[in-house]
Amino acid sequence: MQFNALTPALVSAFEAIVSPAHVLTAATAEAQQYEAYGRDHTEDFHFAPDVVLRPAAVEEVSAIMQLCHQHRVPVTARGAGTGLSGGALPIHNGVVLSMERFNKILKIDERNLQATVEPGVVTEAFQNAVKEVGLFYPPDPASKGSCFLGGNLSQSSGGPKAVKYGTTRDYILNLQVVLPTGEIIWTGANTLKYATGYNLTQLMVGSEGTLGIITKAVFRLLPYPQHNILMLVPFRQEAQAAEAVAAVFRAGIIPSGMEFMEREAIAWSSDYLKIPLTLPEDITAHLLIELDGQDLDQLYKEAEQVYGVLEHYDVGEILLADTAGQKDDLWKIRRNIGNSVRYNSVYKEEDTVVPRAELPTLLKGVKEIGRRYGFKSVCYGHAGDGNLHVNIIRGELSDEQWNVGLREPISEIFALCVQLGGTISGEHGIGLVQKPYMHIALQEANLNLMRGIKQVFDPHGILNPGKIF
Amino acid sequence: MQFNALTPALVSAFEAIVSPAHVLTAATAEAQQYEAYGRDHTEDFHFAPDVVLRPAAVEEVSAIMQLCHQHRVPVTARGAGTGLSGGALPIHNGVVLSMERFNKILKIDERNLQATVEPGVVTEAFQNAVKEVGLFYPPDPASKGSCFLGGNLSQSSGGPKAVKYGTTRDYILNLQVVLPTGEIIWTGANTLKYATGYNLTQLMVGSEGTLGIITKAVFRLLPYPQHNILMLVPFRQEAQAAEAVAAVFRAGIIPSGMEFMEREAIAWSSDYLKIPLTLPEDITAHLLIELDGQDLDQLYKEAEQVYGVLEHYDVGEILLADTAGQKDDLWKIRRNIGNSVRYNSVYKEEDTVVPRAELPTLLKGVKEIGRRYGFKSVCYGHAGDGNLHVNIIRGELSDEQWNVGLREPISEIFALCVQLGGTISGEHGIGLVQKPYMHIALQEANLNLMRGIKQVFDPHGILNPGKIF
Repeated sequence: MQFNALTPALVSAFEAIVSPAHVLTAATAEAQQYEAYGRDHTEDFHFAPDVVLRPAAVEEVSAIMQLCHQHRVPVTARGAGTGLSGGALPIHNGVVLSMERFNKILKIDERNLQATVEPGVVTEAFQNAVKEVGLFYPPDPASKGSCFLGGNLSQSSGGPKAVKYGTTRDYILNLQVVLPTGEIIWTGANTLKYATGYNLTQLMVGSEGTLGIITKAVFRLLPYPQHNILMLVPFRQEAQAAEAVAAVFRAGIIPSGMEFMEREAIAWSSDYLKIPLTLPEDITAHLLIELDGQDLDQLYKEAEQVYGVLEHYDVGEILLADTAGQKDDLWKIRRNIGNSVRYNSVYKEEDTVVPRAELPTLLKGVKEIGRRYGFKSVCYGHAGDGNLHVNIIRGELSDEQWNVGLREPISEIFALCVQLGGTISGEHGIGLVQKPYMHIALQEANLNLMRGIKQVFDPHGILNPGKIF
Repeated sequence: MQFNALTPALVSAFEAIVSPAHVLTAATAEAQQYEAYGRDHTEDFHFAPDVVLRPAAVEEVSAIMQLCHQHRVPVTARGAGTGLSGGALPIHNGVVLSMERFNKILKIDERNLQATVEPGVVTEAFQNAVKEVGLFYPPDPASKGSCFLGGNLSQSSGGPKAVKYGTTRDYILNLQVVLPTGEIIWTGANTLKYATGYNLTQLMVGSEGTLGIITKAVFRLLPYPQHNILMLVPFRQEAQAAEAVAAVFRAGIIPSGMEFMEREAIAWSSDYLKIPLTLPEDITAHLLIELDGQDLDQLYKEAEQVYGVLEHYDVGEILLADTAGQKDDLWKIRRNIGNSVRYNSVYKEEDTVVPRAELPTLLKGVKEIGRRYGFKSVCYGHAGDGNLHVNIIRGELSDEQWNVGLREPISEIFALCVQLGGTISGEHGIGLVQKPYMHIALQEANLNLMRGIKQVFDPHGILNPGKIF
């Protein structure tokens, strides 16, 4: 694709659309603020946009897209910048389209258990708003306190509750989207069932800003589960922790959380947060298991069943969280593993995913590959979904080892995932960093279909160029 | 699109691929058998295929597709022929590709709660097979005793349990697909989460055989719910039945079935089945409500809550099904409404869907439109999903009234759906019969995107031509 550079005339045109206050360039904006628009949470990458635009209405987005389409200027949509695959990085420069001003919850429809939102709403703010009327929006990525719903849609983000409730994909009903030509469409209908032609809604979800700009979203909601039980289960053998996961499901129980944490993951995070946690020396891994529902007695019955399953494994003393504060602390530790790893070292996070019973084999394989290539990894993640986050620690690795030398072992890890029936990303997306590994997961025919679909939506290839494939 | 007629040379080539026993033509096959391949359950349509092929291996499907792609011969894949939108009708003649010999359950993976099947497996046979090992495949279209999983995938079929468990779309993990060129791909991975490029799996589901031929499917499964409670609730006012639906959900209860039946729907079906049912004269509609779960005490608590909600409405005596036989009878009545209507008259079935709280308005609108245009309808369906099947009875309508005169009122019904936030098909698909109404639900830009996607997968347009758009 050939792109054109930004002209002063175009910048003026953008100023006429969104007002000069929302057109930022290196020349006009405060340096630190401007620099931040070229970063996300992926390693330590930085790419400078030519201009940052902050529209607040769908008509503004449409007008911007028409201009960029006509002038072949790249457009990279940006949510909160918490992505871990480089999806929001403007690697071909051009326009960064920040959706931060699309921050309104437009409607909570209590009769239909639905809500209409703008894509710049923070996930947790949305969850809190619907909880106030007794409703529940389950997807809860670790970054829920700062990430945007639009970003969640772009990657089909998951989180701990996905094991029972599914990912963002399972809650979206309908999307308002601006196509690269500036046309504004709704992708579907506000209904629980939909069999009216190709499912454009599901095609948009996970398309990482390469097919259109999401400007409104209609989500379905559930009744809020009134009670939950949380337990932290220490294991003396990592592989047994991974095995116990499949056994709990096989016993007929679907937990609302089933998180795996290596010893170091939990140790680093509790240190980082200064939340004291006793870790006996023989403990190598933990499972954090949550049960939820409308009836507490029922949950205690289920908890007993879980204890029954765990009896067959070599576990330490199970911590049953007694208070809301204790529960919060445990979840905080789980959610901050990524931050604590980042605090300790630059790292690469691989978002491996396999059928859940294959997790012990994957974990063993990751460690064996690490030993062979001489790198350390901290592993944790959504064990109930078979979704293991492998954090490769930079530590003392040289630039050469870090930038080039890791390609082979990462390829081996992904090949193992595929061999086990899995794939190379469960919830972080492909973006920039997993793109070189796509051929491991997908045949050329699949990639060609994706390229063809991209061409249909975006004939000039201006939307988030250089991502996915 | 220009298609070519079948040549004797092509027929010989097909015989070499699948053996002569599985190449049926009007000349060689038994007349009645052959005729059946030109029909499905949609009204009384018939279109004759030039040839029926019954392959049994993916390599055979691939070889057939290569030939048809090269020679521009239309190919219409066919499951059990129970579709209600004409999706399996070969309206441009050519090849009917019957998937009836792809009838094996290849693997039930108890460790991962997954199963791999061929598309010609009957839905209920699959449900029974997984139930034997304590697992649950929820989607249950009314025709589950005869329809194929492949057909369910092509339409994203639902059924009563969709209200709690979702439709076919929510259970598919991965598909093996033969593209029109003969290339064989897997669309995704066998994982619960997937963020590895565009979701081709979800794009295939509901694409009605227009993008590729499904030859294998990997479904996720759940633990089988050990208990259920079923109640039949008679209402004196139809609109109240529809209102009560939203109220039950608002009370925090998600039933595993929430079916609406007009008086005539239930009366016709119980007559047809010769299952006696007392219907007091003042009863105009029923809700069939099912609750399911692993714990019977818990279900009784929920049932009490449902009774609490229903107290606010003018209901007759609630029938709580006592025995497995009584439950079977009630579900049989529900599932055979379509058959009983067909037994009484030719009919058109509209698969309207709206947000669930809009159901009373939709129902009122349908009846008003019927009065205005002089036709009778029998309405029933999945009220919990806002999915109302409107059966327009032919009765004494003339050919002209039936074939042309109904277009306007049907358009009005669909326009009402869209106005209420809904669409023109919830679970039956568009196929042939809803195609003229697509512009009511979708903008031209949406249809153009769909046409573009079709072109990417099937550049010669040979797969199920003339359907959807």
